[in-house]
Amino acid sequence: MDSTYAIEQHKKFKGKLSTGLKVPLDSIDDLKVYYTPGVADPCKLIAEEEDARVARAEPGSHVNRETDALYATTIKNNTVAVVTDGSAVLGLGNIGARAGLPVMEGKCALFKKFADVDAFPICIDSQDVDEIVRTVKLIAPVFGGINLEDIAAPRCFEVERRLQQELDIPVFHDDQHGTATIVLAGLYNALKVVGKELSTLKIAMSGAGAAGIAIADLLMAAGAKDIILVDSKGIIAEDRADMNDEKILYARKTNPRGIRGDMSDAMQGADMFIGVSKAGVINGDMVKTMAPNAIVFAMANPIPEIMPDEAHAAGAMVCGIFRGALDNRVKLITIDMQIQAAKNLAALVKDPTAEKIIPGVFEPGVSAEVAKAVK
Amino acid sequence: MDSTYAIEQHKKFKGKLSTGLKVPLDSIDDLKVYYTPGVADPCKLIAEEEDARVARAEPGSHVNRETDALYATTIKNNTVAVVTDGSAVLGLGNIGARAGLPVMEGKCALFKKFADVDAFPICIDSQDVDEIVRTVKLIAPVFGGINLEDIAAPRCFEVERRLQQELDIPVFHDDQHGTATIVLAGLYNALKVVGKELSTLKIAMSGAGAAGIAIADLLMAAGAKDIILVDSKGIIAEDRADMNDEKILYARKTNPRGIRGDMSDAMQGADMFIGVSKAGVINGDMVKTMAPNAIVFAMANPIPEIMPDEAHAAGAMVCGIFRGALDNRVKLITIDMQIQAAKNLAALVKDPTAEKIIPGVFEPGVSAEVAKAVK
Repeated sequence: MDSTYAIEQHKKFKGKLSTGLKVPLDSIDDLKVYYTPGVADPCKLIAEEEDARVARAEPGSHVNRETDALYATTIKNNTVAVVTDGSAVLGLGNIGARAGLPVMEGKCALFKKFADVDAFPICIDSQDVDEIVRTVKLIAPVFGGINLEDIAAPRCFEVERRLQQELDIPVFHDDQHGTATIVLAGLYNALKVVGKELSTLKIAMSGAGAAGIAIADLLMAAGAKDIILVDSKGIIAEDRADMNDEKILYARKTNPRGIRGDMSDAMQGADMFIGVSKAGVINGDMVKTMAPNAIVFAMANPIPEIMPDEAHAAGAMVCGIFRGALDNRVKLITIDMQIQAAKNLAALVKDPTAEKIIPGVFEPGVSAEVAKAVK
Repeated sequence: MDSTYAIEQHKKFKGKLSTGLKVPLDSIDDLKVYYTPGVADPCKLIAEEEDARVARAEPGSHVNRETDALYATTIKNNTVAVVTDGSAVLGLGNIGARAGLPVMEGKCALFKKFADVDAFPICIDSQDVDEIVRTVKLIAPVFGGINLEDIAAPRCFEVERRLQQELDIPVFHDDQHGTATIVLAGLYNALKVVGKELSTLKIAMSGAGAAGIAIADLLMAAGAKDIILVDSKGIIAEDRADMNDEKILYARKTNPRGIRGDMSDAMQGADMFIGVSKAGVINGDMVKTMAPNAIVFAMANPIPEIMPDEAHAAGAMVCGIFRGALDNRVKLITIDMQIQAAKNLAALVKDPTAEKIIPGVFEPGVSAEVAKAVK
């Protein structure tokens, strides 16, 4: 595809998202119900329920202000914020809040298309953890969930952790857990194809950023025991220098055989390669040193090795996770829900083959089956 | 109307606003243009134009990051944030960010219905000026304009002033300037009905909050010279105590005849009464002391005296102001634009009478004629 074509199409439509009306506004009588003076009644109902919660709470304790009245009478019940700071947009890196907007609109469009969730882009013009957390907290009243998107590691870990602690709506970092869940779904089917077990699989991963760490977490929660993480400076190991707190933690949790060295060392004898850094980190010679029937998931994005079909399926899958979260008013999307979502997604492919381990994004049931996992 | 009816209708539709797609997303090829990998191209274009502006700017100087590429390829060109802190919602007072959401959704719905502007509610869970300003600045990348709504005085003055200084998109406090513009529009036609001149009109106003101050400003800019502001403690005058900085300023700018006392003193001999505080501040005896052919605009909202038709017309008018601002990429909505908008709106009523000085909200041209004033 010509690189100017996508720009021309974006210009033609002037962006990808609009708003629409869920209520009739065709007469003065309609305005009197949905605008002034009728709109005062749901306002009062929400305020009363919130005030009652505050009155019942122990002084100084946390009050969950997300009331039933709020969910029942406003868009909160179906609305998700797609939040970025523009620091790790696709494979483009730190391009800032404004340049990240086309991607956030695109993700919001997927939410609408694949899960009928109303999502809206929030591009935060700051890359300071405290400011990002504070901003999301302050605008949270409108939203039923927060989808963090394209925020660089290690900042993304703290942003997500703090928001999950401080908000009473689900917070989910797409690049971490969306990617991890689609990898696990694909892996469940790949294991069937190659006849191997997750518990004995030797996994070499290129990339220890947002996606890599989350994939490691999810795969270990699902039963994987031997994962080697490799970043731009080599294999993550306990005695290595140049590591942030997150990596020091994962040096302990991964690499059980204590392998040292670089990507080629990690690849020797590996049953699986997962690439979530950039293209070109492995080559054919390295792949030849892997175990027989090796599984290769190369997912650098959006450079040549990209697998857009899988990226699209991952996008639709995340929409399904939020569909389930909204429908069930869950406050936290747990790792068990992600494992179940991966299983449901994998099960949609009746006879997995090397060429087909993930359902196509337009195949029926992708979003709905994933939504069922979140309860 | 039964007070439960509006609640039932809000519950039936589960809120008033949805999102929609402006682009086709019906095939993998569509996804490759509007999501990955095609979406990277407009992202890069925006980042390049922004980087070039930064490179050209004097070190340390303000850089306008709202690029042509951003307006051309994203929803920024048609999207307005409807921002509240929930501190002065309708006549309900300080009910908070969440309870204010039904009103903000309603205003967003008006934007769509009457001006085809895509507006989205931002309900900020803080009533601290610095936090409100900072939050709006940080989420501004997505928006082509900021409509402040239902923020209490005097906080609203500083919030608006600072945002206008610091952002390169228009910022407009609806309760101040929207109300003021509709009052001026109505007044232009009322003056024709009673055969009086704005420059010699004696005006008594109940309410010196957000709306009252803005009405005084706009009417004086349009030529009014004799306005008396009355708040809950009496007439605003230079020697009165109990006044915030804003009121001290207006004690100097208004009340040229130096009247002292309460509402009944302000009403004696007045040609016009404007009520933007609460119902019941004037009575029939006071009205009898006004000049012959007096004009009475009682606009407390949403208590019995409410004039919902005028409130609806005001809502549609503000949508028109933003329509014009977006179409012409204006960075500031000036008081001259508001005066012109009021004139255009007034001119839509061909033969004004005591009963008909403002066009009905569903009459053709309301939003379009107002939009023409903003250039």
